[in-house]
Amino acid sequence: MIKVSCAEILCIGTELLIGDIVNTNAAFISKRLALLGINQYYQACVGDNPARMMAAVKGALSRCDMLITSGGLGPTYDDLTKETVSQALDRELVLHEHTLERIRGYFRRRGSEMTENNLKQAMVPRGAIVFDNDWGTAPGIAVEDEESGKVVIMLPGPPRELEPMFDTYVMPFLRKYATEILVSRNVNITGLGESTVEARLRPLMESALNPTVAPYCKEGEVRLRVTAKTTDYEEGVRMCDQMIERIRATDIGPYIYGIDTDLEHAVVDTLREHGLTLGTAESCTGGQIASRITDVAGCSDVFIGGIVAYANDVKVNVLGVSPETLKNYGAVSEETAREMALGAIERLGCSVGLATTGIAGPGGGTPAKPVGLVYVACAYNGGVTVDRLMLSGTREHIRRLTSNRALKMALEAVRS
Amino acid sequence: MIKVSCAEILCIGTELLIGDIVNTNAAFISKRLALLGINQYYQACVGDNPARMMAAVKGALSRCDMLITSGGLGPTYDDLTKETVSQALDRELVLHEHTLERIRGYFRRRGSEMTENNLKQAMVPRGAIVFDNDWGTAPGIAVEDEESGKVVIMLPGPPRELEPMFDTYVMPFLRKYATEILVSRNVNITGLGESTVEARLRPLMESALNPTVAPYCKEGEVRLRVTAKTTDYEEGVRMCDQMIERIRATDIGPYIYGIDTDLEHAVVDTLREHGLTLGTAESCTGGQIASRITDVAGCSDVFIGGIVAYANDVKVNVLGVSPETLKNYGAVSEETAREMALGAIERLGCSVGLATTGIAGPGGGTPAKPVGLVYVACAYNGGVTVDRLMLSGTREHIRRLTSNRALKMALEAVRS
Repeated sequence: MIKVSCAEILCIGTELLIGDIVNTNAAFISKRLALLGINQYYQACVGDNPARMMAAVKGALSRCDMLITSGGLGPTYDDLTKETVSQALDRELVLHEHTLERIRGYFRRRGSEMTENNLKQAMVPRGAIVFDNDWGTAPGIAVEDEESGKVVIMLPGPPRELEPMFDTYVMPFLRKYATEILVSRNVNITGLGESTVEARLRPLMESALNPTVAPYCKEGEVRLRVTAKTTDYEEGVRMCDQMIERIRATDIGPYIYGIDTDLEHAVVDTLREHGLTLGTAESCTGGQIASRITDVAGCSDVFIGGIVAYANDVKVNVLGVSPETLKNYGAVSEETAREMALGAIERLGCSVGLATTGIAGPGGGTPAKPVGLVYVACAYNGGVTVDRLMLSGTREHIRRLTSNRALKMALEAVRS
Repeated sequence: MIKVSCAEILCIGTELLIGDIVNTNAAFISKRLALLGINQYYQACVGDNPARMMAAVKGALSRCDMLITSGGLGPTYDDLTKETVSQALDRELVLHEHTLERIRGYFRRRGSEMTENNLKQAMVPRGAIVFDNDWGTAPGIAVEDEESGKVVIMLPGPPRELEPMFDTYVMPFLRKYATEILVSRNVNITGLGESTVEARLRPLMESALNPTVAPYCKEGEVRLRVTAKTTDYEEGVRMCDQMIERIRATDIGPYIYGIDTDLEHAVVDTLREHGLTLGTAESCTGGQIASRITDVAGCSDVFIGGIVAYANDVKVNVLGVSPETLKNYGAVSEETAREMALGAIERLGCSVGLATTGIAGPGGGTPAKPVGLVYVACAYNGGVTVDRLMLSGTREHIRRLTSNRALKMALEAVRS
């Protein structure tokens, strides 16, 4: 068996080089390689140019034993990954009958015709292992080239084909290459900035050799990645849990809201544990909170529904906000937020009501009520808590931070 | 002035290599470099390791004249970009007083204390141009090194700092390096798969040398990127427009819904043009349609609001769906979708009502009503159109395609 000490990811596609799409495949694949303890030191992207693709493939194979590519397996004339890799490994491409039949079947089931250019998607390097594509046409391919001591895995570019193919077929294939494994836990923190977290935890982080503790930012939250290197999964989990207890004992402790979760999952799980239900009344977040909660599969025992009261009439007619409140305090006010949250409970029949009203920008601000002014309310157990936030940044960022705060308030209300 | 023929992007951060976060910076930066006509052939990611960072920086500078880095400018002990680049360019780091004052002020305004580790964020290579960070602490830095003939630009990692800094300060700085420019237009298509589009357009695409036409997939849609290389922006626009007219004249034409837009912007613009308003009644999409529409700044003249009727009680009590309909046909049915769309119009007072009801999965399916069965309805001008979809894929993908279809139906209803 080929010994793999490190792997590189090479994503192929000119659309990546000119920023037409965001590269989610690299994050997806690298996360899984890390779980298998396969070292990664480098990732790259290259365009649909044969010469540069060849240089990138050869460069990667000069540095590592395993190369995983995404993209360039499509039916179009500029899809050249298999041609490049088979040339680099000096293996001819041969027709894979099983794949040809599957591609025919795929088009037949969809009631459309297979075109001639799909034929080339059934060509694979001689001796390759083929991973069925149950979500598209191009199969995944693995070549274990004993002669060069290299393993090359080629995967289709579209994430909705690559991701399920990787978890269903490629992970089992890769397990034999896992040596030591990495066990990671992410500590979810909200309410502190990265430099404050790092300053307070610096002594702990600098002395933590195994597991290591590293801070990073994701969508308006700071997370701590605790990573143990081990040969036994259970031992790795124990090591991480011990380190997490040490972190909880510091003054960062109160700001931790979960482990390996995100706000929406934490809210759904916590409300379910307490036998509670949730409803939303959103203005400036425009449905984002409801959308995030319903991203969580199986949330229907917790989430009743939501009102997106973008226009003031909807706040009055559907949510029951009093016209006097709107007239006296305005739509963006503590009083309106309070009534929206209570309105959610009354109209939707839920236990916990979240409401948001504010100015997400870039337009709509005034000196008295500038862009970034947001009120977030949480109604529960007969009471209402309202937070006033003064946020800055883009419309997207203001909406994101507002829905983060609302979800956190639901957690705090229920857990206190 | 240094002649720049090509640029590379190097994103720094171990969190990228192990998939903790998705690399949006590369897409953001590369899109803008492409607009300036600066060639890009390669992108890479490397971790917070000094030796490998140096190898990656030197490798990039051996291939190109301009290197843009993101990440590694933070206050923590593993932030080493400036140290690495200044060593590679043989320039010492000096204290930038202006930046030090700004960092002090940033913490003062937030009512928290500046920590000692923020001091290192005020160090810059001698002679560097500094770009203020109006959204965080670490300044952006550009070094134009005449001796080596290289330009190196270092930017903070968090996208919500890098993105506005790039558009505000870095783009003006980069304009002097723009030679020929690329003018791109994206043709938005919905309802056809990539291989069908490519098969029908192959002769046109193969003969298109300038502008070029390339297909790519993004979030359930196929787009055609039309790119003209020119020295005059207006001429580039004309060249693209001419090519787009040729594409419209093919049998792909009817599937084009917009140029350089996305479904949500196309819906808001089109409804605004017609003086119409929109309301939503969502079940399986859970607020996603409302959230996408309200992503569009200034949508409040078009978007009235939405009901997220996740539980059946909400469909009855808030939207006015008849209990008999639910009993006889079920929540996931053409009849319920129809009543939800009409309910949106009645309760929200909008001109166009969109409704979705279905089974997004992974649970909840039955043999009669499997996962992926979705009904999408559009009520307008006294009539209701209902589409029945049989989708496959992940929960995220089914929800995404469903909201795409709903938005497309709004466009079709209003434009017909």
